[in-house]
Amino acid sequence: MCEAKAYLLKGSEEEEIMEEVNEIVEENGTVTLRSIFGEEKVLKAKLKSFSLVSHRVILEPIP
Amino acid sequence: MCEAKAYLLKGSEEEEIMEEVNEIVEENGTVTLRSIFGEEKVLKAKLKSFSLVSHRVILEPIP
Repeated sequence: MCEAKAYLLKGSEEEEIMEEVNEIVEENGTVTLRSIFGEEKVLKAKLKSFSLVSHRVILEPIP
Repeated sequence: MCEAKAYLLKGSEEEEIMEEVNEIVEENGTVTLRSIFGEEKVLKAKLKSFSLVSHRVILEPIP
């Protein structure tokens, strides 16, 4: 499966915020994450990196 | 496999810019795409959406 885990940067820490993410939409200073379970989270953040090899999405908060 | 195709929005058109993308890094108004073939492209753009279901990365140019 191709789903990824999403993490939010907090200083040098990475806080896990969603598992099994399969959709990411970035607009107007927010990132919307959706999981295969139908879960949805909207964060005031932007994409920092996404690795399909390690299945990790890293988001950076927008101050 | 989890790789995705990357498209750049040109008006209402989507121009395919890279196949088999496995890494995306967004910083300072650029998006860097890397493929499983070691290809790398840096674009003046930002992420619009990413679907792991349809394996499509949509980028929006920054004017």
